[in-house]
Amino acid sequence: MATNKYISMSVIKRLPRYYRFLSNLKDDGISRISSKELSNRMGLTASQIRQDLNCFGGFGQQGYGYNVETLYEEIGKILGVDQGFKMILVGAGNLGRAIATHMSFQSRGFELIGIFDKNQAIAGEMIKNIPIRSINVLDDFCKENLPVVAALCIPSSESEEIVDQLVALGIKGFWNFTHFDILAKYPDVAVENVHLSDSIMTLSYQVMNTA
Amino acid sequence: MATNKYISMSVIKRLPRYYRFLSNLKDDGISRISSKELSNRMGLTASQIRQDLNCFGGFGQQGYGYNVETLYEEIGKILGVDQGFKMILVGAGNLGRAIATHMSFQSRGFELIGIFDKNQAIAGEMIKNIPIRSINVLDDFCKENLPVVAALCIPSSESEEIVDQLVALGIKGFWNFTHFDILAKYPDVAVENVHLSDSIMTLSYQVMNTA
Repeated sequence: MATNKYISMSVIKRLPRYYRFLSNLKDDGISRISSKELSNRMGLTASQIRQDLNCFGGFGQQGYGYNVETLYEEIGKILGVDQGFKMILVGAGNLGRAIATHMSFQSRGFELIGIFDKNQAIAGEMIKNIPIRSINVLDDFCKENLPVVAALCIPSSESEEIVDQLVALGIKGFWNFTHFDILAKYPDVAVENVHLSDSIMTLSYQVMNTA
Repeated sequence: MATNKYISMSVIKRLPRYYRFLSNLKDDGISRISSKELSNRMGLTASQIRQDLNCFGGFGQQGYGYNVETLYEEIGKILGVDQGFKMILVGAGNLGRAIATHMSFQSRGFELIGIFDKNQAIAGEMIKNIPIRSINVLDDFCKENLPVVAALCIPSSESEEIVDQLVALGIKGFWNFTHFDILAKYPDVAVENVHLSDSIMTLSYQVMNTA
């Protein structure tokens, strides 16, 4: 199934949720589901679901609904969970360690192949069988191992320099936990921002304005 | 300045970014800025910025622009960064520890007052001067200390039970790192979801579809 390059990011951002729900359905032994039933479970309208999935050619059959296994696999392919993109993680502080330890990279389309930190004192420590390496060997490592994606868990103030270095080394995508605006400088790379402090401030607003 | 209850979440979600940019401007000693200059720095259009800030009554003056300090403080008030909402964190695994250690709660409107985990073996360990407590004392702690917000860093499969318990104990808002859909069950609480696995899958799609 050919993917359409002009699918809006809001549709793309809903796909991992479909993928999760379908995974749960599979685990529950459910083999087919109507868009109406899926919509009830997901809190979306049935027409929204049909619209979303139509962006990719649609997988449903009138009167039958969706085959859970097929839809799960197709959405997985669209998301690229089988791609195994080589990823490095820069910054092995509390957040970086949690990300490296907590995430299931492999089932999400990535393979974590290297962890780097500027703190020489922690070089050699192991996280999930990967040694923390000094940032000084980042160039050599990338030239040899050709990672395509980097997760950034470093202070925002140090980010620009590292991003410059990584883009020059061929990194095409960033999982960005910093506040450095990568796209403003490099509009052609893929960026997914996780801004925890923005998220917690939005929560503060919501709590204050919830009756 | 009275806040308007019907401001769209997309505007609210941009406010922390304004707040960050204004904080940087302040640090750089810049005391006033035009919407055009702010828009250049933020990658938004000037009219978008004027529209956003007009939702809250607008703080700019024709021909003068915005007073950085005033705008920073007003956005801070709107976001509630001075509220000091009492927060507890449930789940002191890798992610929970990183969140507790890494985040600046106080400057974001919260005060972290308790950390809980079901693992009795780690009870008593300290994170940022807060002892990890057994989940068994959650009820007593909440009745005595009246937290209003909870950060959830527990497995999704254990979330429903804990959310039920916390809502019964008076929790009004959740910083939700799990995949349990809190709003589907409790539509009246404030919820801010951080779905790291959705984020990394969206990145995989983007990398695959970036030329």
